[in-house]
Amino acid sequence: MDKRVKSQRQILKYEAGSLNRQDDLIAVESPLTIVINGQEFATMVCTPEHMEDLVIGFLASEGIIRLADEIQSLSVSKQGFAYVELERDFDLEKDASSKRFIGSCCGKSRQFYFQNDVKTAKTVMNHRLKLSLDHCFALMDGLNRRSSDFIKTGGVHNAALCTTEEIIISRTDIGRHNALDKIYGYCLKHKIRLGDKLIVFSGRISSEVLLKISKIGVGILLSKSAPTDLALELADDLGITTVGFIRNQSMNIYTHPDRIVTSDREKV
Amino acid sequence: MDKRVKSQRQILKYEAGSLNRQDDLIAVESPLTIVINGQEFATMVCTPEHMEDLVIGFLASEGIIRLADEIQSLSVSKQGFAYVELERDFDLEKDASSKRFIGSCCGKSRQFYFQNDVKTAKTVMNHRLKLSLDHCFALMDGLNRRSSDFIKTGGVHNAALCTTEEIIISRTDIGRHNALDKIYGYCLKHKIRLGDKLIVFSGRISSEVLLKISKIGVGILLSKSAPTDLALELADDLGITTVGFIRNQSMNIYTHPDRIVTSDREKV
Repeated sequence: MDKRVKSQRQILKYEAGSLNRQDDLIAVESPLTIVINGQEFATMVCTPEHMEDLVIGFLASEGIIRLADEIQSLSVSKQGFAYVELERDFDLEKDASSKRFIGSCCGKSRQFYFQNDVKTAKTVMNHRLKLSLDHCFALMDGLNRRSSDFIKTGGVHNAALCTTEEIIISRTDIGRHNALDKIYGYCLKHKIRLGDKLIVFSGRISSEVLLKISKIGVGILLSKSAPTDLALELADDLGITTVGFIRNQSMNIYTHPDRIVTSDREKV
Repeated sequence: MDKRVKSQRQILKYEAGSLNRQDDLIAVESPLTIVINGQEFATMVCTPEHMEDLVIGFLASEGIIRLADEIQSLSVSKQGFAYVELERDFDLEKDASSKRFIGSCCGKSRQFYFQNDVKTAKTVMNHRLKLSLDHCFALMDGLNRRSSDFIKTGGVHNAALCTTEEIIISRTDIGRHNALDKIYGYCLKHKIRLGDKLIVFSGRISSEVLLKISKIGVGILLSKSAPTDLALELADDLGITTVGFIRNQSMNIYTHPDRIVTSDREKV
Protein backbone atom coordinates (compact mmCIF):
# COMPACT_ATOMS: atom_id res chain seq x y z
CA MET A 1 0.00 0.00 0.00
CA ASP A 2 1.31 3.44 -0.91
CA LYS A 3 0.71 5.47 2.24
CA ARG A 4 0.96 8.68 0.30
CA VAL A 5 -2.31 8.03 -1.49
CA LYS A 6 -4.32 5.78 0.80
CA SER A 7 -4.51 4.98 4.47
CA GLN A 8 -6.05 2.08 6.33
CA ARG A 9 -8.88 2.55 8.79
CA GLN A 10 -11.21 0.31 10.68
CA ILE A 11 -14.84 0.87 9.74
CA LEU A 12 -18.22 -0.71 10.40
CA LYS A 13 -19.50 -2.24 7.18
CA TYR A 14 -23.14 -3.16 6.71
CA GLU A 15 -23.54 -5.70 3.94
CA ALA A 16 -25.89 -8.59 3.16
CA GLY A 17 -27.88 -7.86 6.28
CA SER A 18 -25.06 -7.88 8.82
CA LEU A 19 -22.67 -5.41 10.41
CA ASN A 20 -18.98 -6.15 10.71
CA ARG A 21 -15.81 -4.35 11.68
CA GLN A 22 -13.32 -4.43 8.86
CA ASP A 23 -10.32 -2.62 7.48
CA ASP A 24 -10.94 -0.18 4.67
CA LEU A 25 -8.70 1.93 2.44
CA ILE A 26 -9.34 5.68 2.54
CA ALA A 27 -8.00 8.32 0.15
CA VAL A 28 -5.37 10.52 1.77
CA GLU A 29 -6.08 14.27 1.69
CA SER A 30 -3.15 16.45 2.53
CA PRO A 31 -2.66 20.25 2.68
CA LEU A 32 0.02 21.88 0.54
CA THR A 33 1.04 25.49 1.06
CA ILE A 34 2.90 27.13 -1.80
CA VAL A 35 5.45 29.77 -0.79
CA ILE A 36 6.84 31.90 -3.65
CA ASN A 37 10.02 33.89 -3.03
CA GLY A 38 9.30 33.71 0.70
CA GLN A 39 5.67 34.83 0.44
CA GLU A 40 2.79 32.48 1.18
CA PHE A 41 0.84 32.28 -2.05
CA ALA A 42 -1.89 29.67 -1.67
CA THR A 43 -2.89 26.56 0.20
CA MET A 44 -4.67 23.65 -1.38
CA VAL A 45 -5.38 20.07 -0.42
CA CYS A 46 -4.22 17.23 -2.61
CA THR A 47 -3.17 13.61 -2.88
CA PRO A 48 0.47 13.89 -1.81
CA GLU A 49 2.36 12.44 -4.76
CA HIS A 50 3.82 14.12 -7.84
CA MET A 51 3.79 17.31 -5.79
CA GLU A 52 6.44 19.09 -7.85
CA ASP A 53 4.46 18.59 -11.03
CA LEU A 54 1.35 19.76 -9.19
CA VAL A 55 3.06 22.99 -8.12
CA ILE A 56 4.46 23.68 -11.59
CA GLY A 57 1.11 23.00 -13.25
CA PHE A 58 -0.75 25.06 -10.69
CA LEU A 59 1.56 28.07 -11.07
CA ALA A 60 1.21 27.88 -14.86
CA SER A 61 -2.57 27.59 -14.56
CA GLU A 62 -2.59 30.68 -12.37
CA GLY A 63 -0.49 32.62 -14.86
CA ILE A 64 2.45 32.98 -12.45
CA ILE A 65 4.81 31.16 -14.84
CA ARG A 66 4.69 30.21 -18.50
CA LEU A 67 7.64 27.81 -18.59
CA ALA A 68 9.11 25.49 -15.99
CA ASP A 69 12.48 27.24 -16.53
CA GLU A 70 11.14 30.36 -14.85
CA ILE A 71 11.38 28.42 -11.59
CA GLN A 72 14.91 28.69 -10.15
CA SER A 73 14.30 26.15 -7.42
CA LEU A 74 11.42 24.12 -6.07
CA SER A 75 11.38 21.88 -3.03
CA VAL A 76 8.47 20.21 -1.28
CA SER A 77 8.84 19.52 2.43
CA LYS A 78 7.36 16.60 4.31
CA GLN A 79 5.41 19.11 6.38
CA GLY A 80 3.42 20.14 3.30
CA PHE A 81 5.18 23.28 2.16
CA ALA A 82 6.37 23.89 -1.41
CA TYR A 83 9.13 26.48 -1.55
CA VAL A 84 9.38 28.10 -4.96
CA GLU A 85 12.05 30.55 -6.03
CA LEU A 86 11.23 32.38 -9.24
CA GLU A 87 13.81 33.94 -11.54
CA ARG A 88 11.84 37.16 -11.48
CA ASP A 89 10.62 39.29 -8.60
CA PHE A 90 7.31 38.21 -7.20
CA ASP A 91 4.88 40.71 -5.75
CA LEU A 92 2.14 38.90 -3.86
CA GLU A 93 -0.27 41.84 -3.95
CA LYS A 94 0.13 42.38 -7.66
CA ASP A 95 0.45 38.77 -8.79
CA ALA A 96 -2.30 37.58 -6.52
CA SER A 97 -4.71 40.38 -7.33
CA SER A 98 -6.79 37.96 -9.37
CA LYS A 99 -6.55 35.31 -6.68
CA ARG A 100 -9.67 36.21 -4.74
CA PHE A 101 -11.84 33.48 -6.14
CA ILE A 102 -13.84 30.58 -4.86
CA GLY A 103 -13.24 27.13 -6.24
CA SER A 104 -16.37 25.55 -4.89
CA CYS A 105 -15.77 22.33 -6.79
CA CYS A 106 -16.81 23.75 -10.12
CA GLY A 107 -15.96 27.23 -9.05
CA LYS A 108 -14.25 29.79 -11.17
CA SER A 109 -14.08 33.49 -10.73
CA ARG A 110 -15.44 35.54 -13.56
CA GLN A 111 -12.80 38.08 -12.54
CA PHE A 112 -10.21 35.33 -12.65
CA TYR A 113 -11.46 34.28 -16.04
CA PHE A 114 -11.38 37.77 -17.47
CA GLN A 115 -8.08 38.82 -15.94
CA ASN A 116 -5.84 35.83 -15.79
CA ASP A 117 -7.43 33.28 -18.08
CA VAL A 118 -7.44 35.65 -21.01
CA LYS A 119 -3.66 35.67 -20.67
CA THR A 120 -3.31 31.93 -20.29
CA ALA A 121 -6.23 30.22 -22.09
CA LYS A 122 -5.18 29.31 -25.60
CA THR A 123 -7.39 28.64 -28.59
CA VAL A 124 -6.38 25.31 -30.09
CA MET A 125 -6.03 25.98 -33.81
CA ASN A 126 -4.65 22.61 -34.88
CA HIS A 127 -7.42 20.38 -36.23
CA ARG A 128 -5.11 17.86 -37.92
CA LEU A 129 -5.17 15.51 -34.94
CA LYS A 130 -7.80 12.81 -35.53
CA LEU A 131 -9.03 10.24 -33.02
CA SER A 132 -11.15 7.21 -33.89
CA LEU A 133 -14.24 6.21 -31.95
CA ASP A 134 -12.55 2.88 -31.16
CA HIS A 135 -9.60 4.67 -29.61
CA CYS A 136 -11.94 6.87 -27.52
CA PHE A 137 -13.23 3.70 -25.88
CA ALA A 138 -9.79 2.07 -25.66
CA LEU A 139 -8.20 5.09 -23.96
CA MET A 140 -11.07 5.39 -21.46
CA ASP A 141 -10.77 1.67 -20.74
CA GLY A 142 -7.06 2.19 -20.18
CA LEU A 143 -7.73 4.99 -17.69
CA ASN A 144 -10.29 2.90 -15.84
CA ARG A 145 -7.93 -0.06 -15.65
CA ARG A 146 -5.06 2.02 -14.33
CA SER A 147 -7.32 3.71 -11.81
CA SER A 148 -8.72 0.53 -10.36
CA ASP A 149 -5.25 -0.99 -10.15
CA PHE A 150 -3.98 2.12 -8.49
CA ILE A 151 -6.41 2.91 -5.77
CA LYS A 152 -9.45 1.27 -4.23
CA THR A 153 -10.75 4.13 -2.18
CA GLY A 154 -13.37 5.50 -4.56
CA GLY A 155 -12.43 8.99 -3.48
CA VAL A 156 -10.16 10.20 -6.28
CA HIS A 157 -10.12 11.47 -9.83
CA ASN A 158 -7.86 10.36 -12.62
CA ALA A 159 -6.44 12.03 -15.69
CA ALA A 160 -4.12 10.73 -18.36
CA LEU A 161 -2.05 12.30 -21.10
CA CYS A 162 -2.29 10.22 -24.29
CA THR A 163 -1.39 9.96 -27.90
CA THR A 164 -4.25 8.85 -30.13
CA GLU A 165 -3.02 5.29 -29.56
CA GLU A 166 -1.99 4.97 -25.93
CA ILE A 167 -1.67 6.46 -22.46
CA ILE A 168 1.69 8.16 -21.74
CA ILE A 169 1.19 9.06 -18.07
CA SER A 170 -1.76 8.97 -15.69
CA ARG A 171 -2.22 10.95 -12.49
CA THR A 172 -4.57 10.63 -9.54
CA ASP A 173 -5.78 13.19 -7.04
CA ILE A 174 -8.65 13.81 -4.64
CA GLY A 175 -9.08 17.13 -6.50
CA ARG A 176 -10.08 16.95 -10.15
CA HIS A 177 -8.13 20.08 -10.97
CA ASN A 178 -5.06 18.80 -9.21
CA ALA A 179 -4.98 15.66 -11.37
CA LEU A 180 -4.91 17.94 -14.43
CA ASP A 181 -2.33 20.28 -12.89
CA LYS A 182 -0.06 17.27 -12.27
CA ILE A 183 -0.27 16.47 -15.97
CA TYR A 184 0.29 20.11 -16.91
CA GLY A 185 3.38 20.29 -14.67
CA TYR A 186 4.78 17.10 -16.17
CA CYS A 187 4.33 18.48 -19.68
CA LEU A 188 6.07 21.74 -18.82
CA LYS A 189 8.93 20.07 -16.96
CA HIS A 190 9.60 17.63 -19.77
CA LYS A 191 8.76 20.08 -22.57
CA ILE A 192 6.24 17.62 -24.05
CA ARG A 193 4.92 18.60 -27.48
CA LEU A 194 1.15 18.71 -27.23
CA GLY A 195 -0.06 19.06 -30.82
CA ASP A 196 -0.53 15.30 -31.10
CA LYS A 197 -1.73 14.65 -27.53
CA LEU A 198 -5.07 14.51 -25.79
CA ILE A 199 -6.38 14.11 -22.25
CA VAL A 200 -8.66 11.42 -20.81
CA PHE A 201 -10.37 12.38 -17.58
CA SER A 202 -12.66 10.75 -15.01
CA GLY A 203 -14.31 13.95 -13.78
CA ARG A 204 -17.05 16.28 -14.92
CA ILE A 205 -16.26 18.97 -17.46
CA SER A 206 -16.86 22.31 -15.74
CA SER A 207 -15.75 25.66 -17.14
CA GLU A 208 -12.72 25.51 -14.91
CA VAL A 209 -11.70 22.09 -16.22
CA LEU A 210 -12.20 23.21 -19.80
CA LEU A 211 -10.07 26.31 -19.25
CA LYS A 212 -7.32 24.16 -17.80
CA ILE A 213 -7.38 21.92 -20.87
CA SER A 214 -7.02 24.99 -23.08
CA LYS A 215 -4.13 26.30 -20.97
CA ILE A 216 -2.35 22.95 -21.22
CA GLY A 217 -2.95 23.26 -24.95
CA VAL A 218 -4.51 19.98 -26.02
CA GLY A 219 -7.34 19.88 -28.52
CA ILE A 220 -9.30 16.82 -27.35
CA LEU A 221 -10.79 16.08 -23.94
CA LEU A 222 -12.40 12.69 -23.29
CA SER A 223 -14.41 12.27 -20.10
CA LYS A 224 -16.42 9.59 -18.36
CA SER A 225 -18.73 12.28 -16.97
CA ALA A 226 -21.03 15.16 -17.91
CA PRO A 227 -20.19 18.69 -19.05
CA THR A 228 -21.81 21.99 -18.07
CA ASP A 229 -23.25 24.40 -20.62
CA LEU A 230 -20.65 27.07 -19.81
CA ALA A 231 -17.82 24.57 -20.38
CA LEU A 232 -19.27 23.68 -23.79
CA GLU A 233 -19.58 27.36 -24.78
CA LEU A 234 -15.91 27.81 -23.89
CA ALA A 235 -14.99 24.63 -25.79
CA ASP A 236 -16.80 25.98 -28.87
CA ASP A 237 -14.86 29.24 -28.59
CA LEU A 238 -11.48 27.75 -27.72
CA GLY A 239 -11.53 25.06 -30.42
CA ILE A 240 -11.57 22.07 -28.10
CA THR A 241 -13.23 18.74 -28.95
CA THR A 242 -15.17 17.51 -25.92
CA VAL A 243 -16.50 13.97 -25.62
CA GLY A 244 -18.39 12.95 -22.47
CA PHE A 245 -20.25 10.01 -20.91
CA ILE A 246 -17.85 7.50 -22.44
CA ARG A 247 -19.38 4.39 -20.88
CA ASN A 248 -20.68 1.01 -22.01
CA GLN A 249 -19.86 1.48 -25.69
CA SER A 250 -21.66 4.79 -25.95
CA MET A 251 -20.45 8.40 -25.87
CA ASN A 252 -21.60 11.98 -26.46
CA ILE A 253 -19.61 14.21 -28.81
CA TYR A 254 -20.37 17.80 -27.77
CA THR A 255 -18.05 20.19 -29.59
CA HIS A 256 -15.73 20.25 -32.62
CA PRO A 257 -16.58 16.70 -33.79
CA ASP A 258 -14.24 17.06 -36.79
CA ARG A 259 -11.36 15.61 -34.73
CA ILE A 260 -13.32 12.38 -34.10
CA VAL A 261 -13.33 9.90 -36.96
CA THR A 262 -14.79 6.48 -37.59
CA SER A 263 -12.15 3.78 -37.80
CA ASP A 264 -11.79 4.18 -41.57
CA ARG A 265 -10.60 7.75 -40.95
CA GLU A 266 -13.88 9.20 -42.10
CA LYS A 267 -15.07 12.27 -40.23
CA VAL A 268 -18.08 11.64 -38.04
CA MET B 1 -37.77 22.16 -18.61
CA ASP B 2 -36.45 24.58 -16.01
CA LYS B 3 -34.00 26.72 -17.96
CA ARG B 4 -32.31 27.83 -14.77
CA VAL B 5 -30.87 24.38 -14.16
CA LYS B 6 -30.60 22.73 -17.57
CA SER B 7 -30.31 23.80 -21.17
CA GLN B 8 -30.91 21.93 -24.39
CA ARG B 9 -28.14 21.32 -26.90
CA GLN B 10 -27.71 19.27 -30.03
CA ILE B 11 -25.01 16.64 -29.68
CA LEU B 12 -23.65 13.69 -31.63
CA LYS B 13 -24.47 10.51 -29.76
CA TYR B 14 -22.70 7.23 -30.49
CA GLU B 15 -24.75 4.31 -29.28
CA ALA B 16 -25.31 0.70 -30.35
CA GLY B 17 -22.80 1.12 -33.15
CA SER B 18 -24.25 4.19 -34.82
CA LEU B 19 -23.86 7.96 -34.61
CA ASN B 20 -26.86 10.25 -34.47
CA ARG B 21 -27.58 13.90 -33.89
CA GLN B 22 -29.92 14.32 -30.96
CA ASP B 23 -31.00 16.83 -28.36
CA ASP B 24 -29.44 16.51 -24.95
CA LEU B 25 -29.94 18.26 -21.60
CA ILE B 26 -26.87 19.97 -20.16
CA ALA B 27 -26.43 21.31 -16.62
CA VAL B 28 -26.37 25.12 -16.53
CA GLU B 29 -23.29 26.67 -14.92
CA SER B 30 -23.62 30.33 -14.10
CA PRO B 31 -21.26 32.84 -12.44
CA LEU B 32 -22.39 34.68 -9.31
CA THR B 33 -20.46 37.66 -7.95
CA ILE B 34 -21.17 38.60 -4.36
CA VAL B 35 -20.88 42.31 -3.55
CA ILE B 36 -20.92 43.21 0.16
CA ASN B 37 -21.60 46.84 1.15
CA GLY B 38 -20.49 47.88 -2.32
CA GLN B 39 -17.26 45.85 -2.33
CA GLU B 40 -16.76 42.85 -4.59
CA PHE B 41 -16.21 39.94 -2.24
CA ALA B 42 -16.08 36.73 -4.29
CA THR B 43 -17.19 35.12 -7.53
CA MET B 44 -18.30 31.53 -7.80
CA VAL B 45 -20.13 29.46 -10.37
CA CYS B 46 -23.35 27.72 -9.48
CA THR B 47 -26.64 26.30 -10.65
CA PRO B 48 -28.74 29.48 -10.72
CA GLU B 49 -31.65 28.66 -8.43
CA HIS B 50 -32.10 29.27 -4.70
CA MET B 51 -29.44 31.94 -5.08
CA GLU B 52 -30.43 33.89 -1.95
CA ASP B 53 -30.05 30.81 0.20
CA LEU B 54 -26.73 30.12 -1.50
CA VAL B 55 -25.44 33.59 -0.66
CA ILE B 56 -26.61 33.41 2.96
CA GLY B 57 -25.10 29.95 3.43
CA PHE B 58 -21.87 30.95 1.74
CA LEU B 59 -21.43 34.08 3.89
CA ALA B 60 -22.09 32.04 7.03
CA SER B 61 -19.62 29.36 5.89
CA GLU B 62 -17.02 32.06 5.34
CA GLY B 63 -17.60 33.50 8.81
CA ILE B 64 -18.92 36.83 7.45
CA ILE B 65 -22.27 36.41 9.20
CA ARG B 66 -23.58 34.16 11.94
CA LEU B 67 -27.30 34.82 11.57
CA ALA B 68 -29.41 35.72 8.55
CA ASP B 69 -30.63 38.81 10.47
CA GLU B 70 -27.19 40.37 10.12
CA ILE B 71 -28.06 40.90 6.46
CA GLN B 72 -30.01 44.15 6.04
CA SER B 73 -30.83 43.51 2.39
CA LEU B 74 -29.99 40.98 -0.28
CA SER B 75 -30.92 41.03 -3.94
CA VAL B 76 -29.73 38.85 -6.77
CA SER B 77 -29.73 40.38 -10.26
CA LYS B 78 -30.37 38.53 -13.49
CA GLN B 79 -26.86 39.49 -14.55
CA GLY B 80 -25.38 37.30 -11.81
CA PHE B 81 -24.63 39.79 -9.05
CA ALA B 82 -25.74 39.36 -5.44
CA TYR B 83 -25.85 42.71 -3.62
CA VAL B 84 -25.57 42.26 0.13
CA GLU B 85 -25.92 45.03 2.69
CA LEU B 86 -24.70 44.05 6.14
CA GLU B 87 -25.87 45.69 9.37
CA ARG B 88 -22.24 46.16 10.35
CA ASP B 89 -19.36 47.79 8.56
CA PHE B 90 -17.55 45.50 6.18
CA ASP B 91 -13.85 45.84 5.55
CA LEU B 92 -12.85 43.74 2.54
CA GLU B 93 -9.18 43.67 3.48
CA LYS B 94 -9.82 42.60 7.04
CA ASP B 95 -12.77 40.30 6.47
CA ALA B 96 -11.25 38.69 3.43
CA SER B 97 -7.81 38.24 4.90
CA SER B 98 -8.43 34.55 5.17
CA LYS B 99 -9.89 34.42 1.67
CA ARG B 100 -6.72 33.67 -0.22
CA PHE B 101 -7.39 29.99 -0.70
CA ILE B 102 -7.78 27.56 -3.52
CA GLY B 103 -10.88 25.44 -3.69
CA SER B 104 -9.60 22.91 -6.19
CA CYS B 105 -12.66 20.72 -5.87
CA CYS B 106 -11.66 19.29 -2.54
CA GLY B 107 -9.58 22.30 -1.74
CA LYS B 108 -9.35 23.97 1.60
CA SER B 109 -6.77 26.31 2.93
CA ARG B 110 -5.02 25.26 6.04
CA GLN B 111 -4.82 28.96 6.79
CA PHE B 112 -8.55 29.20 6.15
CA TYR B 113 -9.10 26.26 8.41
CA PHE B 114 -7.03 27.65 11.22
CA GLN B 115 -8.23 31.24 10.98
CA ASN B 116 -11.84 31.17 9.95
CA ASP B 117 -12.97 27.62 10.51
CA VAL B 118 -11.91 27.65 14.12
CA LYS B 119 -14.44 30.44 14.59
CA THR B 120 -17.21 28.74 12.66
CA ALA B 121 -16.76 24.96 12.90
CA LYS B 122 -18.81 23.62 15.78
CA THR B 123 -18.37 20.38 17.65
CA VAL B 124 -21.69 18.55 17.67
CA MET B 125 -22.20 17.48 21.28
CA ASN B 126 -25.70 16.09 21.00
CA HIS B 127 -25.62 12.31 20.62
CA ARG B 128 -29.30 11.76 21.45
CA LEU B 129 -30.31 11.72 17.78
CA LYS B 130 -30.51 8.11 16.56
CA LEU B 131 -30.97 6.93 12.99
CA SER B 132 -31.79 3.37 11.99
CA LEU B 133 -29.97 1.51 9.22
CA ASP B 134 -33.29 1.18 7.39
CA HIS B 135 -33.77 4.93 7.43
CA CYS B 136 -30.21 5.46 6.11
CA PHE B 137 -31.21 3.51 3.00
CA ALA B 138 -34.67 5.09 2.79
CA LEU B 139 -33.32 8.66 2.96
CA MET B 140 -30.65 7.94 0.34
CA ASP B 141 -33.31 6.37 -1.90
CA GLY B 142 -35.38 9.51 -1.41
CA LEU B 143 -32.47 11.73 -2.47
CA ASN B 144 -31.80 9.57 -5.54
CA ARG B 145 -35.45 9.65 -6.55
CA ARG B 146 -35.72 13.43 -6.20
CA SER B 147 -32.49 13.89 -8.11
CA SER B 148 -33.45 11.76 -11.08
CA ASP B 149 -36.85 13.43 -11.25
CA PHE B 150 -35.25 16.78 -11.06
CA ILE B 151 -32.48 16.77 -13.56
CA LYS B 152 -31.22 14.39 -16.23
CA THR B 153 -27.92 16.02 -17.00
CA GLY B 154 -25.63 13.91 -14.84
CA GLY B 155 -23.64 16.99 -14.01
CA VAL B 156 -24.91 18.01 -10.60
CA HIS B 157 -24.75 17.18 -6.92
CA ASN B 158 -27.65 16.89 -4.53
CA ALA B 159 -28.05 17.45 -0.82
CA ALA B 160 -31.10 17.16 1.40
CA LEU B 161 -31.96 18.27 4.91
CA CYS B 162 -33.89 15.51 6.70
CA THR B 163 -35.41 14.39 9.93
CA THR B 164 -34.65 10.78 10.82
CA GLU B 165 -37.87 9.89 8.99
CA GLU B 166 -38.07 12.04 5.87
CA ILE B 167 -36.57 14.66 3.57
CA ILE B 168 -37.55 18.26 4.37
CA ILE B 169 -35.86 20.05 1.45
CA SER B 170 -33.41 18.99 -1.25
CA ARG B 171 -31.09 21.21 -3.25
CA THR B 172 -29.11 20.71 -6.45
CA ASP B 173 -25.96 22.41 -7.73
CA ILE B 174 -23.09 21.82 -10.12
CA GLY B 175 -20.86 22.56 -7.11
CA ARG B 176 -21.00 20.13 -4.21
CA HIS B 177 -20.33 22.86 -1.71
CA ASN B 178 -22.98 25.09 -3.19
CA ALA B 179 -25.65 22.42 -2.69
CA LEU B 180 -24.72 22.39 1.01
CA ASP B 181 -24.57 26.20 1.22
CA LYS B 182 -28.10 26.37 -0.21
CA ILE B 183 -29.24 24.12 2.63
CA TYR B 184 -27.28 26.14 5.18
CA GLY B 185 -28.84 29.39 3.92
CA TYR B 186 -32.32 27.90 4.08
CA CYS B 187 -31.75 26.80 7.68
CA LEU B 188 -30.50 30.23 8.72
CA LYS B 189 -33.27 32.11 6.93
CA HIS B 190 -36.00 29.96 8.43
CA LYS B 191 -34.27 29.50 11.81
CA ILE B 192 -34.53 25.72 11.49
CA ARG B 193 -33.64 23.82 14.67
CA LEU B 194 -30.91 21.36 13.74
CA GLY B 195 -30.53 19.13 16.79
CA ASP B 196 -32.89 16.54 15.28
CA LYS B 197 -31.81 16.95 11.64
CA LEU B 198 -29.27 15.31 9.37
CA ILE B 199 -27.95 15.75 5.84
CA VAL B 200 -27.96 13.29 2.93
CA PHE B 201 -25.48 14.07 0.19
CA SER B 202 -24.52 12.70 -3.22
CA GLY B 203 -20.92 13.88 -3.19
CA ARG B 204 -17.63 12.79 -1.74
CA ILE B 205 -16.80 13.72 1.85
CA SER B 206 -13.72 15.94 1.72
CA SER B 207 -12.42 17.96 4.66
CA GLU B 208 -14.17 21.00 3.23
CA VAL B 209 -17.52 19.20 3.07
CA LEU B 210 -17.10 17.88 6.59
CA LEU B 211 -16.29 21.34 7.92
CA LYS B 212 -19.39 22.71 6.24
CA ILE B 213 -21.53 20.05 7.93
CA SER B 214 -20.08 21.03 11.28
CA LYS B 215 -20.74 24.72 10.60
CA ILE B 216 -24.34 23.97 9.69
CA GLY B 217 -24.45 22.08 12.95
CA VAL B 218 -25.90 18.67 12.12
CA GLY B 219 -24.51 15.52 13.71
CA ILE B 220 -25.07 12.97 10.93
CA LEU B 221 -23.87 13.02 7.31
CA LEU B 222 -25.01 10.29 4.91
CA SER B 223 -23.28 10.08 1.54
CA LYS B 224 -23.41 7.94 -1.57
CA SER B 225 -19.67 8.46 -2.04
CA ALA B 226 -16.28 8.04 -0.40
CA PRO B 227 -14.60 10.11 2.34
CA THR B 228 -11.00 11.26 2.65
CA ASP B 229 -8.84 10.47 5.66
CA LEU B 230 -8.61 14.16 6.65
CA ALA B 231 -12.40 14.47 6.60
CA LEU B 232 -12.70 11.44 8.89
CA GLU B 233 -10.13 12.85 11.33
CA LEU B 234 -12.15 16.05 11.48
CA ALA B 235 -15.39 14.07 11.89
CA ASP B 236 -13.81 12.19 14.83
CA ASP B 237 -12.82 15.49 16.44
CA LEU B 238 -16.02 17.41 15.69
CA GLY B 239 -18.39 14.67 16.83
CA ILE B 240 -19.99 14.00 13.46
CA THR B 241 -21.33 10.60 12.39
CA THR B 242 -20.27 9.90 8.79
CA VAL B 243 -21.75 7.12 6.69
CA GLY B 244 -20.55 6.61 3.13
CA PHE B 245 -21.00 4.36 0.09
CA ILE B 246 -24.71 3.94 0.79
CA ARG B 247 -25.52 1.83 -2.28
CA ASN B 248 -27.20 -1.49 -3.06
CA GLN B 249 -28.16 -2.29 0.53
CA SER B 250 -24.66 -1.79 1.87
CA MET B 251 -22.97 1.11 3.65
CA ASN B 252 -19.81 2.06 5.55
CA ILE B 253 -20.07 3.68 8.98
CA TYR B 254 -16.85 5.60 9.51
CA THR B 255 -17.14 7.76 12.63
CA HIS B 256 -19.29 8.05 15.77
CA PRO B 257 -21.40 4.96 15.04
CA ASP B 258 -23.38 5.44 18.29
CA ARG B 259 -25.94 7.54 16.41
CA ILE B 260 -26.73 4.66 14.03
CA VAL B 261 -29.01 1.98 15.42
CA THR B 262 -30.54 -1.23 14.13
CA SER B 263 -34.26 -0.98 13.63
CA ASP B 264 -34.98 -2.18 17.17
CA ARG B 265 -33.16 0.91 18.47
CA GLU B 266 -30.13 -1.07 19.47
CA LYS B 267 -26.79 0.64 18.98
CA VAL B 268 -24.71 -0.82 16.17
